[in-house]
Amino acid sequence: MNINVGVVGAGTMGTALAQRVSENVEQVILHVRKQDLCDDINNDRHNSQYYPNLKLNENIIATLDISDLKKCSIVVLAIPSSAFRTTLKSLKKYLKKDTIIVTTAKGIEYPSLKTMGNLIEEYFDENYVALSGPNFASEIMLNLPTITNIASNSMENSLKVKKALTTEQFKIKIIDDVIGIEFCGVLKNINAIANGICEGMNINENARYSILTKGFKDTIKIIESIGGKSETVHEYCGFGDLILTSTSHESRNHTLGILYGQRLIIDENASGVVFEGKNSIKAVKDICNENNIDSNIVDFVYNVIIKKQPPLKAFKELWSTVK
Amino acid sequence: MNINVGVVGAGTMGTALAQRVSENVEQVILHVRKQDLCDDINNDRHNSQYYPNLKLNENIIATLDISDLKKCSIVVLAIPSSAFRTTLKSLKKYLKKDTIIVTTAKGIEYPSLKTMGNLIEEYFDENYVALSGPNFASEIMLNLPTITNIASNSMENSLKVKKALTTEQFKIKIIDDVIGIEFCGVLKNINAIANGICEGMNINENARYSILTKGFKDTIKIIESIGGKSETVHEYCGFGDLILTSTSHESRNHTLGILYGQRLIIDENASGVVFEGKNSIKAVKDICNENNIDSNIVDFVYNVIIKKQPPLKAFKELWSTVK
Repeated sequence: MNINVGVVGAGTMGTALAQRVSENVEQVILHVRKQDLCDDINNDRHNSQYYPNLKLNENIIATLDISDLKKCSIVVLAIPSSAFRTTLKSLKKYLKKDTIIVTTAKGIEYPSLKTMGNLIEEYFDENYVALSGPNFASEIMLNLPTITNIASNSMENSLKVKKALTTEQFKIKIIDDVIGIEFCGVLKNINAIANGICEGMNINENARYSILTKGFKDTIKIIESIGGKSETVHEYCGFGDLILTSTSHESRNHTLGILYGQRLIIDENASGVVFEGKNSIKAVKDICNENNIDSNIVDFVYNVIIKKQPPLKAFKELWSTVK
Repeated sequence: MNINVGVVGAGTMGTALAQRVSENVEQVILHVRKQDLCDDINNDRHNSQYYPNLKLNENIIATLDISDLKKCSIVVLAIPSSAFRTTLKSLKKYLKKDTIIVTTAKGIEYPSLKTMGNLIEEYFDENYVALSGPNFASEIMLNLPTITNIASNSMENSLKVKKALTTEQFKIKIIDDVIGIEFCGVLKNINAIANGICEGMNINENARYSILTKGFKDTIKIIESIGGKSETVHEYCGFGDLILTSTSHESRNHTLGILYGQRLIIDENASGVVFEGKNSIKAVKDICNENNIDSNIVDFVYNVIIKKQPPLKAFKELWSTVK
């Protein structure tokens, strides 16, 4: 395709998506923050930090200058939710009005309770595209079979993004539920933390799988209450990503839960992960309160991580509600 | 409670359920097939074959004589589906008409396509109770927190079974979908085989979790087509048991899949597991055909296990249909 695509963020996911989309389009502009990484990519064709052994395609150009993204018709934001608003502010000056923004970030701004899509709407228009699925970035980078969901309020934009990103091994399925896809991404992290806490305490598997079942049902309940669809929770971005994140030891939220379950409370100031996880929990708890939704799983995670209840006490309380 | 409960089958699940229910009732009559196991239980209070280190409660009485079950008001059948019809025939002579029969077996008789519940109906009445959930028997035996679903066409019978079996650590949730609960148990095995085949071939996780998602959606589709409810698939017996069985290395169906994925075809005559797995697959395939249901996951498992297609070829075909 005769278009340029921009990717903001050269972490594992940004780099992997840049590599795949570079098969389809003229040029991929990859925005990075550090001079040495920028040089590594442009001179040596490697992301030395995340994929030291994989060669990047020739048409991926790294830049430190965010204004270079102005010639892109699609810009993928592959950055943590904590960096989202600042990035949007800088992008606002340069992007054309009809640029399609794709978000891979999962999170809710606290205390505004805005999704990443809501933030995009503040600075651009409402027709952003959210992308989410059971996707280890490293496997996308290795060109292994992967499928992901996208959703947007504009079918035209969804179709454009699908066309630009689909390759032989990277499939995209469009669904029609933006709020659902965004909340699946947020709630799977709550479930991964819950499962991590139980694992950290060595809770038996019968109980853990039952709590995961309860978490799946609560995910449906919450998403339906805020206007999403239960079928979205059956999708790759729902069921698939929930299982992958909750059972995988590569998930940082899952690890966060394990640390709390083992009562190895980590230095919060030293870890961005904890900070992001905590904000998501507070945000989801507030959203449940605002919408009169009871979720024992959300309460469990909130009690352990925010209220610092002893995890075994919190588990006993949770288990007494399971029925 | 002033009743006797019978358990047929002193395998891992039968023994564990006998141990739990013995906390509630006068006496548990445990029917076993071998003299030495019967003696071990009655004399030494141990099931030497499955739980050599756990003491059985005093009110569990082992017997070789199936007629001893005639004084039981509830009889739990914890036997493989392949032994079901023969056992029902012998029980028929002795059980009172109002005995409640509980089944933990998952399977479909081939080629009659009858569920275990349908077989009970042939010999007794229709008010059997099906029990299913994400339940490792060993954890039930250890008295670790566990929840399971039961379903019956008679709420009265469901309530009686719930009362007899519920203990502090063993919870029971009644649902209202007998066909759903029985098919969740059958279809999770198909999914466990599918996931096993992929694992055996070393298929990447993004693809495997997507195939599991597809399997979950196909489970809903099949169960709805034959008159069950989609909510049942959200339950402990659905979502919970599906995830436990598909990701656990303790599941024999999962192992069967791995062996086929690795092309280590096992001696079929030497293994009852293969035989049972194969019959389930043929049965589910026939049920899909009869009801005009397309399921790529069922086809995948059928192609590899029954038609002996090379697993990689079958995977490529499956992946081409994933969308």
